[in-house]
Amino acid sequence: MRQRFKTIMTEGKVDQKVTIFGWLRSKRVSKNVAFLVVNDGSTQKDLQLVVDGTNPDFAKLSELGTGASLRAEGVLKASLGKGQDMEVHVDSFEIYGASPEEYPLQKKGHTLEFLREIAHLRGRTNSFGAVYRVRNQLAVLVHEFFQGRGFQWAHTPLITASDAEGAGEMFQVTTLPLDKLPRDDKGAIDFKQDFFGKKAHLTVSGQLNGEALALSIGDIYTFGPTFRAENSNTTRHLAEFWMVEPEMAFATLKDDMQLAEDFLRYVFAEIVKRCPEELDFLGTHYKNSSVEQIAALASQDFGRITYTDAVKELIAASNSAKFEYPVSWGIDLQTEHERYLAEVIFKKPVIVTDYPKDFKAFYMRLNDDNKTVAAMDVIAPRIGEIIGGSQREDRIDVLKSRMRDFHIAPEDLSWYIDLRRFGGVPHAGFGLGFERLVQYVTGMTNIRDVIPFPRFPQGIHF
Amino acid sequence: MRQRFKTIMTEGKVDQKVTIFGWLRSKRVSKNVAFLVVNDGSTQKDLQLVVDGTNPDFAKLSELGTGASLRAEGVLKASLGKGQDMEVHVDSFEIYGASPEEYPLQKKGHTLEFLREIAHLRGRTNSFGAVYRVRNQLAVLVHEFFQGRGFQWAHTPLITASDAEGAGEMFQVTTLPLDKLPRDDKGAIDFKQDFFGKKAHLTVSGQLNGEALALSIGDIYTFGPTFRAENSNTTRHLAEFWMVEPEMAFATLKDDMQLAEDFLRYVFAEIVKRCPEELDFLGTHYKNSSVEQIAALASQDFGRITYTDAVKELIAASNSAKFEYPVSWGIDLQTEHERYLAEVIFKKPVIVTDYPKDFKAFYMRLNDDNKTVAAMDVIAPRIGEIIGGSQREDRIDVLKSRMRDFHIAPEDLSWYIDLRRFGGVPHAGFGLGFERLVQYVTGMTNIRDVIPFPRFPQGIHF
Repeated sequence: MRQRFKTIMTEGKVDQKVTIFGWLRSKRVSKNVAFLVVNDGSTQKDLQLVVDGTNPDFAKLSELGTGASLRAEGVLKASLGKGQDMEVHVDSFEIYGASPEEYPLQKKGHTLEFLREIAHLRGRTNSFGAVYRVRNQLAVLVHEFFQGRGFQWAHTPLITASDAEGAGEMFQVTTLPLDKLPRDDKGAIDFKQDFFGKKAHLTVSGQLNGEALALSIGDIYTFGPTFRAENSNTTRHLAEFWMVEPEMAFATLKDDMQLAEDFLRYVFAEIVKRCPEELDFLGTHYKNSSVEQIAALASQDFGRITYTDAVKELIAASNSAKFEYPVSWGIDLQTEHERYLAEVIFKKPVIVTDYPKDFKAFYMRLNDDNKTVAAMDVIAPRIGEIIGGSQREDRIDVLKSRMRDFHIAPEDLSWYIDLRRFGGVPHAGFGLGFERLVQYVTGMTNIRDVIPFPRFPQGIHF
Repeated sequence: MRQRFKTIMTEGKVDQKVTIFGWLRSKRVSKNVAFLVVNDGSTQKDLQLVVDGTNPDFAKLSELGTGASLRAEGVLKASLGKGQDMEVHVDSFEIYGASPEEYPLQKKGHTLEFLREIAHLRGRTNSFGAVYRVRNQLAVLVHEFFQGRGFQWAHTPLITASDAEGAGEMFQVTTLPLDKLPRDDKGAIDFKQDFFGKKAHLTVSGQLNGEALALSIGDIYTFGPTFRAENSNTTRHLAEFWMVEPEMAFATLKDDMQLAEDFLRYVFAEIVKRCPEELDFLGTHYKNSSVEQIAALASQDFGRITYTDAVKELIAASNSAKFEYPVSWGIDLQTEHERYLAEVIFKKPVIVTDYPKDFKAFYMRLNDDNKTVAAMDVIAPRIGEIIGGSQREDRIDVLKSRMRDFHIAPEDLSWYIDLRRFGGVPHAGFGLGFERLVQYVTGMTNIRDVIPFPRFPQGIHF
């Protein structure tokens, strides 16, 4: 019976028989004894195997290279080495796969840049093992939080014919043969012959479909892949990433803010309990986050301020803060402004509300001042915006007028307008870039290091 | 405070004050009293609101159309009507959104075909509310099962440059302007100028990437969207669907079969506990499945048979079974054969193993007979194949030779071969089409009815 290291380390007892499977991290072989440091990927800490010189297979150990895979049977013993609780005294072992000298993870301390080039193997390092395990636990927490509140996980489509979402550049999806594109009788490309009978793209948000579901089966959340075709080679952007988008029926901006705050505080409070060794390792090595910092975020109420008041505060601080981009009412806040708000003024996460309508999406509910919309961004120290949301426009005439402002033909989204024609209700939701959350918690500075196989301009090798 | 119907119905007490939000399903208004049947999408059963004729807003009820949305405050009372446990005696109510006569769900009993045309509203019907809630619970069970066994949810990429997966036709993904495609100096389309610098497609499986992760952090499962560009207008195919693909390190075909059986039996046993009202409704209306049938599947061991033995059994049965496609060793089993095995011969789900190598994928481990591979399909009564899996080829030379048989250049998948070069281990996994599972449990005969916004040839409206 296969036993994972995590189980052995947390539940194993001295003198218990175990069978372990793992990959060799390092070894020390002397004449009489060999120490093998092994990991199976389930836990941050390695397990030490002790093989006595009298073992009939002892000679095989000299050929065992870093990265080789093996099975071993033995008995758990209290370890004498420091930092280890248990070790396995091996009775018998079997080598599955050798690992020749070209194995690129021979030594420790490779750069993250180098490891990106071998994404198929980087999960075997301490750093990426930690990031991937934290990522999994964060994903579990997303489901736990929303299911616990009665939200249903909704699967919204990724291929869309709507280009109205307006959140960014889109990838086109087609089955037309590019080297002989069919033409209609006016000479234009004949998308009627494409798979869907019209132009299709990869979605930039599941929200519009999510609204339809929230207005049918009640509160829902999406958690799935989303796409941006922007040619941005930054440490904060991916072409393919995972989004979490809850949508609540019968809810206002106030409910939305509370949901976002409750969600983040739940996640921060739980992740430090579930991945203490991973967060400790990452905090020690990369020094951008710490268990204490993450736990502290969970322990206090978030700040709240309107965009208009935030702009006043930022203008008042401009002399000392030396912003690169000057602040005035009507600008879209830059990361430097967001961070100043959260780090200097509030010293904790802060929710900024009621932004000018001109740089926010058409579906956000227009406020009575006719200048701002019922939008909110959650701004966190160190990273800036981590969540963006809004109450949705539920008045048909206002919605149609806003669509025209954005050059969206209402007839192209007639089904979306129907949601207001037939039993419309106040409703609200938000979007969270899941990789931003993983970055925030792990402290990894490059977003390409928090998803196993990142997609970015020119980046699709694996 | 907003209270969901599900909570009210399971935890509510007589004389408790409640505030409810929902949509009107039907009403009966007389001079002295009005009965409003309302639902909020959280539960199969409707809630009845009783409004007394003395209520100051009583007159408004005459304008209230089916589908209108409202808020009501009142007190829970034991209901006198049959089939209802509780009703709300209303003190005050507010109408949010009217619903004019054009509302397409005025009457009950619309056809599924008609409802497909209004996918943005169909979640408000009893049938689709039930299907979506069952879908959500099945998705929760997927995570519960695998997380409970220490598997990690892995997010594998959807955009891929590999066309080696061989599972079907693929959608091309591009940012090139189709009306002026860039050309290289030989006149061919210059994909170097495309977003990823080469041709890219939507993936047909996350398995290859999943193997890399299983061989790094141990057992994983994917659960995400997958694509097929086949022009199939059937009740069993979608262009975009969700797949569950677990992958285990240090595991053989035997472990894989056990995992598949344990998984399905867990899901069947739990779903009847969690969605009894939904399954009861669907069973009664569509008569293709029942709570008893699903529960029975969970209660017994699955059958097991090799492909070779299954073919013998089917040949022996051919006279009585009158198959459309004749059976002989070497054919890919058709649904009629699979169903005969499960329904007539075994009378329960059966796992067929060791299929001929010629119609199975290149990555499946070649058996010692050199004719079959270590593959398995789980065949269920009524539907046929529900899971397909295999032990993976872990011997480099055999893998490369199999790739050449399938006209895949080993250098195009050098990273995949690396997984065998460096510490290769026996490993195995399977794939489950999530919508097939939802179909199976709900008894919906058309796969377009088990995903909220289906994608199929010419089908992308919402």
